[in-house]
Amino acid sequence: MKYDAENVFAKIIRDEAPAHRVYEDDSTLAFMDIMPQVDGHTLVIPKCPAVDIFDVPAEMLTRTIAVTQRVAVAVRSAFSADGVMVAQLSGAAAGQTVFHLHFHVLPRHAGIDFRLHAKDVAPEAVLAEHAERIRQALPAD
Amino acid sequence: MKYDAENVFAKIIRDEAPAHRVYEDDSTLAFMDIMPQVDGHTLVIPKCPAVDIFDVPAEMLTRTIAVTQRVAVAVRSAFSADGVMVAQLSGAAAGQTVFHLHFHVLPRHAGIDFRLHAKDVAPEAVLAEHAERIRQALPAD
Repeated sequence: MKYDAENVFAKIIRDEAPAHRVYEDDSTLAFMDIMPQVDGHTLVIPKCPAVDIFDVPAEMLTRTIAVTQRVAVAVRSAFSADGVMVAQLSGAAAGQTVFHLHFHVLPRHAGIDFRLHAKDVAPEAVLAEHAERIRQALPAD
Repeated sequence: MKYDAENVFAKIIRDEAPAHRVYEDDSTLAFMDIMPQVDGHTLVIPKCPAVDIFDVPAEMLTRTIAVTQRVAVAVRSAFSADGVMVAQLSGAAAGQTVFHLHFHVLPRHAGIDFRLHAKDVAPEAVLAEHAERIRQALPAD
């Protein structure tokens, strides 16, 4: 699949679409998923054009996972989670819906399932508050 | 949680427990999950003692994801997959059952679900054949 520069994450990178950002540097960006499968559901992406794990230079992938680790620490703390799931879906058959490589970071609590079938857009105010909580909990570089 | 040097992945690293290995270098190891959620289900681990994503040095994490990427390429090819899911579960609440950091690599085919509830050990011969297929498909370093 050819990279589509008009996908929504590309627009977020270029600041042409809004997002509740929790972290940003020269090569990566983290922001709230607007249809969270669980409260605190955050996405981490490289800023380079990359459709999926097959399409990203290894160096950009490693930068992305390093930020994902820091975001995981912050998400666990911000949501007092018992655990964290990190998932990377490559290809529509794997569940990918936006074709810019992204890592999902989901706080998990014992006994609480995903909202796997609840594909609802969360209220802006809720996402803004969650993003602020995660930013406050981000470990130092 | 303190790292338990007697966990099964630690034993595999030390060659005290068997595994169908698909890749190995000084710092990482990839092998077949013996209870595959789907055919071709492969695990990638760092060789350092690390309970989960919170417990692993960033440099070892980045080495692990770089190998995970190569294994994803191989798994997609070896199983003619339409997509690949990479998952890292940290904490029992997230579904972690072996407390040595690992990335799951799962080939995905359109319309075929996981065997999420089928926690059966796959036959040795099947795992051996799958491992061989993935080894043959591994891209060059």
